[in-house]
Amino acid sequence: MNIGIIGVGRIGKVHTESISKYVKDVKIKSVYNFIWDDATVEWANSMGLTERCDDYHQILQDPDIDAVLICTSTDTHAKISLEAIEANKHIFCEKPVDHDIKQIIAVKNALDGKNIKYQVGFNRRFDANYRAIRVAIEDDKVGKIYLMTITSRDPAPPSIDYIKVSGGLYLDMAIHDFDMVRYLSGEEVVEVYAAGSVLIDKAIGAEGDIDTSIVTLKLASGALAVIDNSRKSVYGYDQRAEVFGSKGSVMIGNNTKSSIVMSNDSGVTKEKPLHFFLERYMLAYAEEIQAFIHAVKSDTPTPVTITDGLNAVIIAKAAQLSYRENRPVALQEIMP
Amino acid sequence: MNIGIIGVGRIGKVHTESISKYVKDVKIKSVYNFIWDDATVEWANSMGLTERCDDYHQILQDPDIDAVLICTSTDTHAKISLEAIEANKHIFCEKPVDHDIKQIIAVKNALDGKNIKYQVGFNRRFDANYRAIRVAIEDDKVGKIYLMTITSRDPAPPSIDYIKVSGGLYLDMAIHDFDMVRYLSGEEVVEVYAAGSVLIDKAIGAEGDIDTSIVTLKLASGALAVIDNSRKSVYGYDQRAEVFGSKGSVMIGNNTKSSIVMSNDSGVTKEKPLHFFLERYMLAYAEEIQAFIHAVKSDTPTPVTITDGLNAVIIAKAAQLSYRENRPVALQEIMP
Amino acid sequence: MNIGIIGVGRIGKVHTESISKYVKDVKIKSVYNFIWDDATVEWANSMGLTERCDDYHQILQDPDIDAVLICTSTDTHAKISLEAIEANKHIFCEKPVDHDIKQIIAVKNALDGKNIKYQVGFNRRFDANYRAIRVAIEDDKVGKIYLMTITSRDPAPPSIDYIKVSGGLYLDMAIHDFDMVRYLSGEEVVEVYAAGSVLIDKAIGAEGDIDTSIVTLKLASGALAVIDNSRKSVYGYDQRAEVFGSKGSVMIGNNTKSSIVMSNDSGVTKEKPLHFFLERYMLAYAEEIQAFIHAVKSDTPTPVTITDGLNAVIIAKAAQLSYRENRPVALQEIMP
Amino acid sequence: MNIGIIGVGRIGKVHTESISKYVKDVKIKSVYNFIWDDATVEWANSMGLTERCDDYHQILQDPDIDAVLICTSTDTHAKISLEAIEANKHIFCEKPVDHDIKQIIAVKNALDGKNIKYQVGFNRRFDANYRAIRVAIEDDKVGKIYLMTITSRDPAPPSIDYIKVSGGLYLDMAIHDFDMVRYLSGEEVVEVYAAGSVLIDKAIGAEGDIDTSIVTLKLASGALAVIDNSRKSVYGYDQRAEVFGSKGSVMIGNNTKSSIVMSNDSGVTKEKPLHFFLERYMLAYAEEIQAFIHAVKSDTPTPVTITDGLNAVIIAKAAQLSYRENRPVALQEIMP
Repeated sequence: MNIGIIGVGRIGKVHTESISKYVKDVKIKSVYNFIWDDATVEWANSMGLTERCDDYHQILQDPDIDAVLICTSTDTHAKISLEAIEANKHIFCEKPVDHDIKQIIAVKNALDGKNIKYQVGFNRRFDANYRAIRVAIEDDKVGKIYLMTITSRDPAPPSIDYIKVSGGLYLDMAIHDFDMVRYLSGEEVVEVYAAGSVLIDKAIGAEGDIDTSIVTLKLASGALAVIDNSRKSVYGYDQRAEVFGSKGSVMIGNNTKSSIVMSNDSGVTKEKPLHFFLERYMLAYAEEIQAFIHAVKSDTPTPVTITDGLNAVIIAKAAQLSYRENRPVALQEIMP
Repeated sequence: MNIGIIGVGRIGKVHTESISKYVKDVKIKSVYNFIWDDATVEWANSMGLTERCDDYHQILQDPDIDAVLICTSTDTHAKISLEAIEANKHIFCEKPVDHDIKQIIAVKNALDGKNIKYQVGFNRRFDANYRAIRVAIEDDKVGKIYLMTITSRDPAPPSIDYIKVSGGLYLDMAIHDFDMVRYLSGEEVVEVYAAGSVLIDKAIGAEGDIDTSIVTLKLASGALAVIDNSRKSVYGYDQRAEVFGSKGSVMIGNNTKSSIVMSNDSGVTKEKPLHFFLERYMLAYAEEIQAFIHAVKSDTPTPVTITDGLNAVIIAKAAQLSYRENRPVALQEIMP
Repeated sequence: MNIGIIGVGRIGKVHTESISKYVKDVKIKSVYNFIWDDATVEWANSMGLTERCDDYHQILQDPDIDAVLICTSTDTHAKISLEAIEANKHIFCEKPVDHDIKQIIAVKNALDGKNIKYQVGFNRRFDANYRAIRVAIEDDKVGKIYLMTITSRDPAPPSIDYIKVSGGLYLDMAIHDFDMVRYLSGEEVVEVYAAGSVLIDKAIGAEGDIDTSIVTLKLASGALAVIDNSRKSVYGYDQRAEVFGSKGSVMIGNNTKSSIVMSNDSGVTKEKPLHFFLERYMLAYAEEIQAFIHAVKSDTPTPVTITDGLNAVIIAKAAQLSYRENRPVALQEIMP
Repeated sequence: MNIGIIGVGRIGKVHTESISKYVKDVKIKSVYNFIWDDATVEWANSMGLTERCDDYHQILQDPDIDAVLICTSTDTHAKISLEAIEANKHIFCEKPVDHDIKQIIAVKNALDGKNIKYQVGFNRRFDANYRAIRVAIEDDKVGKIYLMTITSRDPAPPSIDYIKVSGGLYLDMAIHDFDMVRYLSGEEVVEVYAAGSVLIDKAIGAEGDIDTSIVTLKLASGALAVIDNSRKSVYGYDQRAEVFGSKGSVMIGNNTKSSIVMSNDSGVTKEKPLHFFLERYMLAYAEEIQAFIHAVKSDTPTPVTITDGLNAVIIAKAAQLSYRENRPVALQEIMP
């Protein structure tokens, strides 16, 4: 099986490296990037990627390529998805599929009736911690869900240039947490209330974005969920979650490089959490691509569908509206 | 120094026992209860309390009594407070001071210009865990506060009879958490959004109350806080908190009877949290009374004032209104 | 019930304070000390102890005194014990009963046939952590015992003056751990191998003592135990234990003032263990005296007998000999 | 770079799989096994290993093979090592190099003056936890070492057939821990005292072996170390260590599949440790082979030398003798 990678910015590089390190029985045949600067060429050489192009249509038209990974900037995801569907390629598309719900629905409609595998890049679904919660819930260890809490804090804010095109904290960052609420609970969200604040960097606020947030979500069953987000955690990437129900609570904490604990005059100290998503989710990135390859090869459904991609964006849009108007927003308002 | 205890129901007994066990230099001279049934008489005898009355005015009129503890049902707190102020007694009053803000303000006004010590029973302020967070914040270990999270779950709901007179989850249970937000942050709350649900017992819902809740609070500085409450946690009283800011995060966990950890085929297991408030806060109850006695003896301010009592109730009322109307409520709406 | 306290040095003060704070229904009628300097007089006044003597025979001869606490220096324990037995007083005696096994046996023999309660001051038996291990073993949670490990490290070495009269690390410090091996396992020790080293302070070595040690103990069942001791742990009093057997392992860790955890750029830090035995075992000291009072009042056996005191010293003597001759020593060699 | 793998029993398979999964720039050219039964052939096919032989001399004589991994039974390690040295191959040899010290010295002598890389399979040196301790010590976080404790317990004893040829607990199992004492401390061991017991399975005792052990080790500096071993831990592979010194303590705990913690009526439960060495040390196996490849390619010393292999066996032999004669044994007694 041959794949093409469309876009080798940060996340495209992650997938390329994780595939070449961990994923068997698949070959990266061709790689596209918008601009091939020296550093990117050098990186591609170091990965043994000799077939390079600056027009991704070459990849879409290559009959030897079975599947593509869309890792370009968000504003191109839907367009390339539609073209790739047209070209009959299986598609792994990074999150979010688009900032515009109509565009995502267009992709969803284009997939209808075609046997094309489409997977959205919600990598946390493939992480051992979150999966352990999901398994516990499936095994009825939690009982009826009462409350969920998700903590998701980045070590440092992205550049203001990135903030400008990011779609804002809810579409860019919290979207993973919105997907986790759906994934862990197995339920749909019906209403959202988002409180946001600019506490870290006024420049973020100047772009109309926020850097600190608490979102309350009401689920279909009446269960309540809350997500706290921050763009700046000095101790590293903070990725915790708890689901609490009638039979008890399951929670996950942060991962560290080692289990070392030092006791000295300053206290009893563990390592900081792994620094950021690359360190923290390296294995999850590999597993999500393996799951995609598996779905293609075995002709089974992908574990993260276009509907999952759509619903997370709907929640994010509802959170945006809620923050802007300072009122709870029912998801029905957002759905087209 | 002599004190009188007005009301020896559950919390009155707690104070009586904790005083006789831990608090020096103070004598419980007289005890009032509405009804002296056999069990209560027997308990009083076991505590060596021989001066008993069924009219608390006897205590208020006793010139040998310096201070009173008001531990009766909430609907009598304000009335007895006013009478005790009139009688020139120092007052420790259980939370909440009243369900009606006007009544609390009446007490506040009555205290004006008098040198009467008045302390409200927010026992968690005297607990080693919460205090450690407060001290860390005062020592600027957290920096600028970004987010606060408080988890507060009871092991089991109270009786429906109690629910009926409790004032509801926000005035009865979350009020401690509202006070903790103010105590830990050192800030005032400006707006509240409360999401509630009935997931544990429909009978609670039939009384117009909820058993599960997430409250988002906006603080004056722009910092955000969230409180999750449940009336039923099968693993016991869950009392956690975190304050996260520009310099890091401080969090507190649950206390256990011992530090034992058992490793066997089922996993690696610690003890459950201490069961409920009596076990968990026994030392805090003693410390709060010691602090009250100290304030009286040294003629210094009490550490929890009538204003603290008032402001927590204002937040609770705002949360009630927010829940009922499903919209964020500014505290200004509630303040008279 | 009236008691007299013989010796109010460090440990005598601990018992006095813990009794006046926590122990009901007992009165400290009289207190002896060898020298009443100003500080000790002041302390006694602050505790309300007005009946003071510098001849402990006054206490022994006082017909109103039911029981005595022997808290003088170790070399006087046996002599005073014998006199107190003669005087028909119940006796709580600090550890070790004596450095000389024959003296302990003399006390044991003097107790024979008399209804005098005699309890030795092994306070850890009354601590919630160690007790939780004991209870787990009694409840057969551990199964057949395979291995035990005890870590016991002091925050700082005592003065060289104290070292000189201490009897050495095994009789002074590890004796608690030897008792814990017997208490936790419910078994007798049959052989000991002690490896010692002087790594902290050469002055300790100059007195023929050691400051660092590992003792291996073989129990009657074939189970093995190991104790590691150090006179200097910069992070405070380190008091851990594990018992491992066919059904699993139970272990206890250190206690802290609060459960606070701080996450910042330096890592994720808990508090240091409580500093030393006063902080760590305050409640255990109260409980051991309560247990002694209870045994006297209810005429039931004391929970720590003269035989327990004897056997711990036998192990300590065996460890001393083992260290000196660098060979395993069977306890039979030591027993008279 | 081409390698040959000599022996594909359990550990040979581990290396084969870990190389093909994680190690780049090296090709497994040829594989030897004593018997090629159907299962082994099938496994080799699944790994794409088509060049197979039942005479390892074919591998040694292959001029295209640069290095060999010796993964046969222990009694053949030295013989094959000598032949491989003769054939000028670089060598990775599984632990222990031999049960007979003279044989190991013969290998050591044969290496003298030749530029052949020789690495012994002490995989724990490449594990993140142990390495974190080593790094902390190198960074002088521990100060002068006082005490070391190592806990190493297998989930279940091997078969009696394996016990018979294993060389006993000290040469087979504790040898890793002996190496860890040297690796972590950076010191040599000078004396050993071993206490052993048969508590798990009498059949192990019938073979002259033990299943439970405590070994005390004296290091050159006077620091003391202790290792506790058990062949049966119902909660899984228990791999902990602590190094304690003048500046504090560093300790490592067990690893788990995820960080999930479940709180329910039974307590607060984490996952068991990873089951056994395959799960626990998978990444360490990959890293040790990568380190070997790196040493060969860069012509730098291997991180685990024949001297490391020799010294661990000397300690194991001293422990055996100590256990048999129940006395401390100086390593000088064992050295030839």
